[in-house]
Amino acid sequence: GAPGPGARIFDGLLVAIIVVNLVAVTLETVQPVAQRFPVLFDVIEYVSIVIFTLEYLARLWVCVEDGRYHDLPPWKARIGFALSPMGLIDLAAVLPSLLILAGVPLGLDLRVLRTLRMVRVLKLTRYSRAMQSIVAALQREKRTMVAALLIVVIALHFAATAVFLAEHKAQPDVFGSIPDAMWWSLATLTTVGYGDMVPHTILGKLIGGVVMLSGIGLFALWTGLFASSFVDELRRRDFKVSWE
Amino acid sequence: GAPGPGARIFDGLLVAIIVVNLVAVTLETVQPVAQRFPVLFDVIEYVSIVIFTLEYLARLWVCVEDGRYHDLPPWKARIGFALSPMGLIDLAAVLPSLLILAGVPLGLDLRVLRTLRMVRVLKLTRYSRAMQSIVAALQREKRTMVAALLIVVIALHFAATAVFLAEHKAQPDVFGSIPDAMWWSLATLTTVGYGDMVPHTILGKLIGGVVMLSGIGLFALWTGLFASSFVDELRRRDFKVSWE
Amino acid sequence: GAPGPGARIFDGLLVAIIVVNLVAVTLETVQPVAQRFPVLFDVIEYVSIVIFTLEYLARLWVCVEDGRYHDLPPWKARIGFALSPMGLIDLAAVLPSLLILAGVPLGLDLRVLRTLRMVRVLKLTRYSRAMQSIVAALQREKRTMVAALLIVVIALHFAATAVFLAEHKAQPDVFGSIPDAMWWSLATLTTVGYGDMVPHTILGKLIGGVVMLSGIGLFALWTGLFASSFVDELRRRDFKVSWE
Amino acid sequence: GAPGPGARIFDGLLVAIIVVNLVAVTLETVQPVAQRFPVLFDVIEYVSIVIFTLEYLARLWVCVEDGRYHDLPPWKARIGFALSPMGLIDLAAVLPSLLILAGVPLGLDLRVLRTLRMVRVLKLTRYSRAMQSIVAALQREKRTMVAALLIVVIALHFAATAVFLAEHKAQPDVFGSIPDAMWWSLATLTTVGYGDMVPHTILGKLIGGVVMLSGIGLFALWTGLFASSFVDELRRRDFKVSWE
Repeated sequence: GAPGPGARIFDGLLVAIIVVNLVAVTLETVQPVAQRFPVLFDVIEYVSIVIFTLEYLARLWVCVEDGRYHDLPPWKARIGFALSPMGLIDLAAVLPSLLILAGVPLGLDLRVLRTLRMVRVLKLTRYSRAMQSIVAALQREKRTMVAALLIVVIALHFAATAVFLAEHKAQPDVFGSIPDAMWWSLATLTTVGYGDMVPHTILGKLIGGVVMLSGIGLFALWTGLFASSFVDELRRRDFKVSWE
Repeated sequence: GAPGPGARIFDGLLVAIIVVNLVAVTLETVQPVAQRFPVLFDVIEYVSIVIFTLEYLARLWVCVEDGRYHDLPPWKARIGFALSPMGLIDLAAVLPSLLILAGVPLGLDLRVLRTLRMVRVLKLTRYSRAMQSIVAALQREKRTMVAALLIVVIALHFAATAVFLAEHKAQPDVFGSIPDAMWWSLATLTTVGYGDMVPHTILGKLIGGVVMLSGIGLFALWTGLFASSFVDELRRRDFKVSWE
Repeated sequence: GAPGPGARIFDGLLVAIIVVNLVAVTLETVQPVAQRFPVLFDVIEYVSIVIFTLEYLARLWVCVEDGRYHDLPPWKARIGFALSPMGLIDLAAVLPSLLILAGVPLGLDLRVLRTLRMVRVLKLTRYSRAMQSIVAALQREKRTMVAALLIVVIALHFAATAVFLAEHKAQPDVFGSIPDAMWWSLATLTTVGYGDMVPHTILGKLIGGVVMLSGIGLFALWTGLFASSFVDELRRRDFKVSWE
Repeated sequence: GAPGPGARIFDGLLVAIIVVNLVAVTLETVQPVAQRFPVLFDVIEYVSIVIFTLEYLARLWVCVEDGRYHDLPPWKARIGFALSPMGLIDLAAVLPSLLILAGVPLGLDLRVLRTLRMVRVLKLTRYSRAMQSIVAALQREKRTMVAALLIVVIALHFAATAVFLAEHKAQPDVFGSIPDAMWWSLATLTTVGYGDMVPHTILGKLIGGVVMLSGIGLFALWTGLFASSFVDELRRRDFKVSWE
């Protein structure tokens, strides 16, 4: 059902705290900023841990009243929530920080541990029902997406092999091996085109042209698959309702 | 209803003046051109202010006969027009220039004020009913677009964090912080690929490959959402009519 | 109706001659190739002029039996063909060369005149009925495409103005004027991303991010419009027939 | 019908061997890796030849029980399989290696021969029925795809000719001939945008802008064609079944 005004303010506050967290994790990696506000980032982190831990416990507590777990006994409902995607995300958002505070050695570089907090961005997904519908629609198309990815893998291998054979004599430092050539294939097939590796021979440019045009075909293929999948959803009618 | 020949000539003239304005605002920033025609740009500006001001007043005057405000008393119709998107655009096209002429200090750099006139480009939207239909169709899909944007935000944060961890030791000057890495993520995920920042480590290139392929997925997702939305419009039948 | 075997051989020969022409026009601009085969390119050109002129006259002669001009008197049918897109293309493919042979001074650089023969590539359009269907489908969507283009024009102007204001002090040589900034806007909004112009300031990069994401939106919008238009065609049923 | 557990384990093993092969072919081109494990790559190759040869013979043996060749006499079924796409791929995966082992001189560089084994990636296509559906859907749209490709060819020729005329005086080393300019056209029209060739003149940049925008149109056109084709498939209903 529609959330009341209290729930909406609560949600708004949590979204704000998540956004503050993302900004903090991001800015903390900027040396001058980190050195100028040495205390601020720690305060944000400790406050966030407290709030996110309380939020997790609260959700674990009230999940028995959630419609999805209504018919289950409380302990099954709680395990059900704890193992649901959102439950795991909520746990992952605080667990590393709690373990460090508890003195458990995680064997990871401190910088890595700090940036791991970026997983908190996933907490935002709770607040967009439309995004959950998109994810659900994608899950139903898993096989098609595996097929589309397989086409990409095959195209990448052929492109990398071909351009390697064409260019490795002219540019041994740039196209020195197939893995090197694979980086060029990726950048070209996805039309990113960094320009750090560019074929110079006529054969290499012909291959490049085919890869570029295949890139458009790839975009068109993936998009056509997605579009037809979403249109199919629309035809089932119930989609429009769950979308809002 | 269909506009008469007088109205069409009037519209054509206004479109021509808007286009002249855009060219003038653009070329005025080119030093050699601005110095060669010192008077021309001032003349264009003063004439445009007069015409656009008269146009605004005229529209404010005749809007009471517009179908949308037909049942309202004149003053309500005029406020309705003044607060409508097109009314606000028409006002924004002249207000800064009028305030400067009236001697009101706006506290802005003169160059900024001059380029602000670029907002006049929005006046063109009045003349394409198809564009108004597109905008209306997009507005109805607001929630879906917010969801699609949220997916992008999450992907950008993960990509930037991952590439920062992979590359900041190999290239501390290039991938020095997550905000720096975010610029790379944006350019790669949107397949722009400037090439000013390129991962060098194997791990960084693997992450880059995943981000590039996610970029195609992102294009496909957005396009699929738009396409299914427009196809849905077609099914409602009334769309085709308002489209023309 | 379906063409007989004689017509198919005839068509095949003409397609071959057109392709030879394209290759010749292209390779003639490569200095070493042009100097090595000084006679070859002239022979190709003279033979082509003769064949294309004869082809044009033949089509002008037999067009009276074409279904489209069946009910017209011969001279009207011939004018009808001469002014049709394919008739104009056939004429444009030989007229400049004939005028030069006839000694009419066209006031154009010889190199420009030679490359003008590239218009012969358009003769290929006759042989793909599917392409004619695509062009016809696009023509019916003219208004929508003008609207989509208008959105691009507005986005380009705003992007160029914004990035100019953000970057012209940091990089006066690169983002020196709005026309300069427009080149960056084009390359970024269309996700081409040459990398010859890249914003350096934080504000410029934020603007860049918005422009990049707008670029994806733009692709999605255009594609959605095309896709829904083609799907609409499919619904009219008769499409599938004319497509083949 | 659904494969039994034995068949699934067998399939899983073959997929694993194919993936090991791809990794081996790829890594063998990296000098330090190849020198460090001189025996490993040979072992992988010999084992793979044995397994893929046995697999090919086994498939040739059992194909008579395949539903598609059920009504044919055994020798016709075997020829039918041998000439089918999957049969040819299975043969191409081992034939070059077998010929070399048999001492048949193929007249090819050893490095080329080794990388030719990359064709084994195509063996993966057997395991994704969804991919076979996609390929089948594409085959049915052959004419439309030829038309879309023809539009690209025409656009590329015009873009290359125009930018060559605009830039060859300003940058004779970069835009020295139409084939050179074609490389730029490809990179720009497909929105790859390496940045190794960039127009400098105003006319060249105007042409560049048109080519970039045509690039978006091209993506939209191809995608629209694919999307409408897939949506059409959905309408035939039977699609969804063969998709899974």
